[in-house]
Amino acid sequence: MKAYCDLLCLPSFAGFVLDEDSGKVLMIQDKHRIARWKFPGGYSKLGEDFSETAIREVFEETGVRAEFQSILAFRQQHDMPYSFDRSDIYVVCRLKPVTFDLTICSEELLDARWMHINELLTSKEHTALSKHVANLAKKGLSESFDDVDITMSELPSVYKGKTFKLFCRPH
Amino acid sequence: MKAYCDLLCLPSFAGFVLDEDSGKVLMIQDKHRIARWKFPGGYSKLGEDFSETAIREVFEETGVRAEFQSILAFRQQHDMPYSFDRSDIYVVCRLKPVTFDLTICSEELLDARWMHINELLTSKEHTALSKHVANLAKKGLSESFDDVDITMSELPSVYKGKTFKLFCRPH
Repeated sequence: MKAYCDLLCLPSFAGFVLDEDSGKVLMIQDKHRIARWKFPGGYSKLGEDFSETAIREVFEETGVRAEFQSILAFRQQHDMPYSFDRSDIYVVCRLKPVTFDLTICSEELLDARWMHINELLTSKEHTALSKHVANLAKKGLSESFDDVDITMSELPSVYKGKTFKLFCRPH
Repeated sequence: MKAYCDLLCLPSFAGFVLDEDSGKVLMIQDKHRIARWKFPGGYSKLGEDFSETAIREVFEETGVRAEFQSILAFRQQHDMPYSFDRSDIYVVCRLKPVTFDLTICSEELLDARWMHINELLTSKEHTALSKHVANLAKKGLSESFDDVDITMSELPSVYKGKTFKLFCRPH
């Protein structure tokens, strides 16, 4: 078990829930981590797609329903606490909100709120990753997401009757 | 152990080694899988960066030295054989060859050769994923990789003294 476990990594998925009309982004504070604003998200269930995990975690944590649009960025980090000595792959999905009212999961969160994207860019409170992704989204809002999005397509697998999701730029 | 193992996935990393002058791509046939042409690659060592894994696996399998350029695409697939019941994340890295002579690892491979990109696009022998990535690379060759590449940057982590790699479009 140890040998194959060394090959594994801990993927987690976040929703960058952006209301394009107001320019506001859904941010949360995690009760079980250092108090800081971050995107809602969490771990996948076995067999769950990236996009499904992000949508599910956003709803469970904040009550907001959202739809998958694209992937904006993904991170690889080694040597992190809370990660069972694995490296992580943290994927930020761009989601479009379908509902806006917040129902905050008090078991998981300290707080959640809609925050203007400029606040992420100007306030020192936010992480380098949040600022970097906010800058990407700002470009999408001011120009177009066509140049920013990593899009999802479904292709036939080499394994009969199965498909897979591929994330890349349009060609 | 079982509980946290359910959260893990099996990442693997391939090199799309493209010689931009000749338009040729390095392809291999894996001795231990169904005989088909695919990109050289394999699993990460614990704590190894995406880019390092792709470069190392290409060298170990084919003897070709290459440099990381970008990520072209990544796949998520569930229910695959040889994956310890994990879903996979398979990342295709665009690499630039520094050497071209092949030293084929006979333990791992049946064959390896430089193949023109058009052959990937026209011959029925190649998988949907190889064709999709070849189309992306063809766009990069004929227009520019600026619109195709998912680029890597290194950012400060929230964990003191650490950094992480972020993969996204330039903003």
